[in-house]
Amino acid sequence: MKKIKVGLMGLGTVGGGVWDVLRMNRDEIIRNCGYEIKIEKILVKEGFKPKVSGVSKDKLTHNFDDIVENDEIEIVIELIGGIEPAREYILRAIKAGKHVVTANKALLAQHGVELSKAAYEAGVRLSYEASVAGGVPIINPLKESLGANKIKKIMGILNGTTNYILTKMTNENVDFHTVLKEAQDMGYAEADPTADVEGFDAAHKLTILSTLAFGTPVKFKDVHREGITKINPLDIEYARELGYVIKLLGIAKEIDGELELRVHPTFIPKNHPLAAVNDSFNAVFVKGNAVGDLMFYGRGAGDLPTASAVISDVMDIIKKRSLKPNLKNGFSYEPTKKAKPMGEIVNEYYIRFMVKDIPGVLGKIATLFGEYNVSLSSVIQKGRSERGVPLVFITHEARESDIQKALQEVNSIDEVIEIGNIIRVENGQERGEQ
Amino acid sequence: MKKIKVGLMGLGTVGGGVWDVLRMNRDEIIRNCGYEIKIEKILVKEGFKPKVSGVSKDKLTHNFDDIVENDEIEIVIELIGGIEPAREYILRAIKAGKHVVTANKALLAQHGVELSKAAYEAGVRLSYEASVAGGVPIINPLKESLGANKIKKIMGILNGTTNYILTKMTNENVDFHTVLKEAQDMGYAEADPTADVEGFDAAHKLTILSTLAFGTPVKFKDVHREGITKINPLDIEYARELGYVIKLLGIAKEIDGELELRVHPTFIPKNHPLAAVNDSFNAVFVKGNAVGDLMFYGRGAGDLPTASAVISDVMDIIKKRSLKPNLKNGFSYEPTKKAKPMGEIVNEYYIRFMVKDIPGVLGKIATLFGEYNVSLSSVIQKGRSERGVPLVFITHEARESDIQKALQEVNSIDEVIEIGNIIRVENGQERGEQ
Repeated sequence: MKKIKVGLMGLGTVGGGVWDVLRMNRDEIIRNCGYEIKIEKILVKEGFKPKVSGVSKDKLTHNFDDIVENDEIEIVIELIGGIEPAREYILRAIKAGKHVVTANKALLAQHGVELSKAAYEAGVRLSYEASVAGGVPIINPLKESLGANKIKKIMGILNGTTNYILTKMTNENVDFHTVLKEAQDMGYAEADPTADVEGFDAAHKLTILSTLAFGTPVKFKDVHREGITKINPLDIEYARELGYVIKLLGIAKEIDGELELRVHPTFIPKNHPLAAVNDSFNAVFVKGNAVGDLMFYGRGAGDLPTASAVISDVMDIIKKRSLKPNLKNGFSYEPTKKAKPMGEIVNEYYIRFMVKDIPGVLGKIATLFGEYNVSLSSVIQKGRSERGVPLVFITHEARESDIQKALQEVNSIDEVIEIGNIIRVENGQERGEQ
Repeated sequence: MKKIKVGLMGLGTVGGGVWDVLRMNRDEIIRNCGYEIKIEKILVKEGFKPKVSGVSKDKLTHNFDDIVENDEIEIVIELIGGIEPAREYILRAIKAGKHVVTANKALLAQHGVELSKAAYEAGVRLSYEASVAGGVPIINPLKESLGANKIKKIMGILNGTTNYILTKMTNENVDFHTVLKEAQDMGYAEADPTADVEGFDAAHKLTILSTLAFGTPVKFKDVHREGITKINPLDIEYARELGYVIKLLGIAKEIDGELELRVHPTFIPKNHPLAAVNDSFNAVFVKGNAVGDLMFYGRGAGDLPTASAVISDVMDIIKKRSLKPNLKNGFSYEPTKKAKPMGEIVNEYYIRFMVKDIPGVLGKIATLFGEYNVSLSSVIQKGRSERGVPLVFITHEARESDIQKALQEVNSIDEVIEIGNIIRVENGQERGEQ
């Protein structure tokens, strides 16, 4: 059997998964790519003890030189995460003429263009299917299967931890902090949950997806980002009453040659395919101008699902390595489209207030909104609490900057106790869309 | 700009879509594959008038020789459908050293191995992403992205017409024939709807998918096939009451090295991702032993979505045509797994009876089922009509042959007026699954 030798950096959850899947599915892998994939060396920290079985000691090294200087190793898999030394090691592997597979979304979101350029110039491949939505094939379908489309929109549930938390909040009517604590105790959420709950992880992934989809280098800092920490059980209840579900979405749209790039909690209609994506599942919804609406759904994390994506990249490299890489590994280097400032986006909005129980408040607020060209499509006012009367609006389409200005003024009205929350609403079709 | 010349067979709905998308998305196509795709000749029937604009008369021909003997044409797209002359033309194109792209599911389901062998031996590619689920990328993900998996199960909503009919029946509580008539009037269903409503179309697609997924040539005749004509509004009502939705599914499973291959109406839990696939949308649910559950969702038909898949195949060929085709174009030639006879499958079942309103009937039937190792998990008996009392069972897992034998005996019980319907239930996890 012909063999391809691979260097593996990192033997944690995903690295261990790669090791296990290569053994478990050896026959399928050989059948589908014609080669046996052999892990020749594994870079681990000093004192590291493998959790997977069958790893002989002489495969382990603490020195990256043992991988990069080994001429028999044709492909390097990077699974150590973080920016440095992952970036340096990948660049060294590329310069040594090795193809690279990585699952490192933070690195790609910030240095993807640099790495991709280096790989293109060295004539090697840089593959990263596992960096977005774990086991779900989305990077390669975007690059290959949808190549005959102008991509108009991407909406993704890109983070499993926050989707798990929102699903629990929705089904069991508990608050954010309670569910987060539970998720941490069960190991579903990190001790420091910031990257997940504040939307950084989703924004990294959206940066990668939109770079591919729109053929222009997208900057991570251009992605507007809001997390789920302010979502209140009340918001979930109102969403249900109004026919919506709240999801943390990564949204990217091309409108008139400009890009909207944002990660935030979103109201989506309860019959939208993304509304049925629950627990820690991920899904990416894509609209192409020829293919129409597509959705890709599956496990966004986990040892074996992510390993499935990593190994599919290795197999793809094996099959294509005699071809000169084209298409710059999916990254475009010259900016052709600019990001739209957040104030200029047009959206529908859900706004929840607490107001004093005095006649005329609703009219006062609605009139003020009208002055900023914000009109209302639904209003809910019912019940009262000690603190006041809850008042909920869904607006028609309005400019974000108008909404913000109106809210600033509303906030100074005496009868308004507080602005509870503002959540953007995605209703499917939008202006300029076919 | 470098050009690749293509011969197109057929300028109907999909052919017209290919023509339009090549013009509409010319820039994206060039960016993603490095070439302009130029349609050099189009084979049409005598007297045919193009419905798309911009087709100059000198491109049209009634003679396939004008395509197959034109040495400048490197790729042939077959969109004429049917078995002959499509099969003959494809074989001639292959022998002339041309790559072939086809959307012809009936042809591939019945002659896929022959065509694929011919292409492999001639050193050309045979691509067929558009043959299953229209614009949804599923063929290439199965061949490429999921190559490191043992595929355990495929469940697909593979026919848009029947999904449209079942969605309407479910949402509007109308019977099959009324909805079919409406669908025909609106052009959503053919005048002769047999291929759709009797499940032939779905069975063709399942044959192709399972051949790829399980690495063994699957015979169309080995796919058990039932259509949706017997689905009664009563069944849909009971499904809802029991927490299910009825879908026409193509189901393929590998269990202990044998294949279950079947197309039939199926009860699926209402929170299963496939349950939310409505109207004419298609979706393919795949379970891999590493990646877990995946779903691919989108438009299963239509001019532009199907053209998106056809052109992605052309682009893929352009990028890889200097590589010798490997993997036999996805088809395996030697049978390694056999199809399980339908009587041996194990399933849960929904069974609806009409019985006489006499005490003891339920016990009599349940006892008889028990004698055939069929036990019940739910029973609904309520209301009565002039004709008798409706009685509904959901069974625990049972062998199909036992169910059939039990039903034969039940049918001869005096108190049983009729067996209204039998529908298989898919509850997610199954024996032997991780």
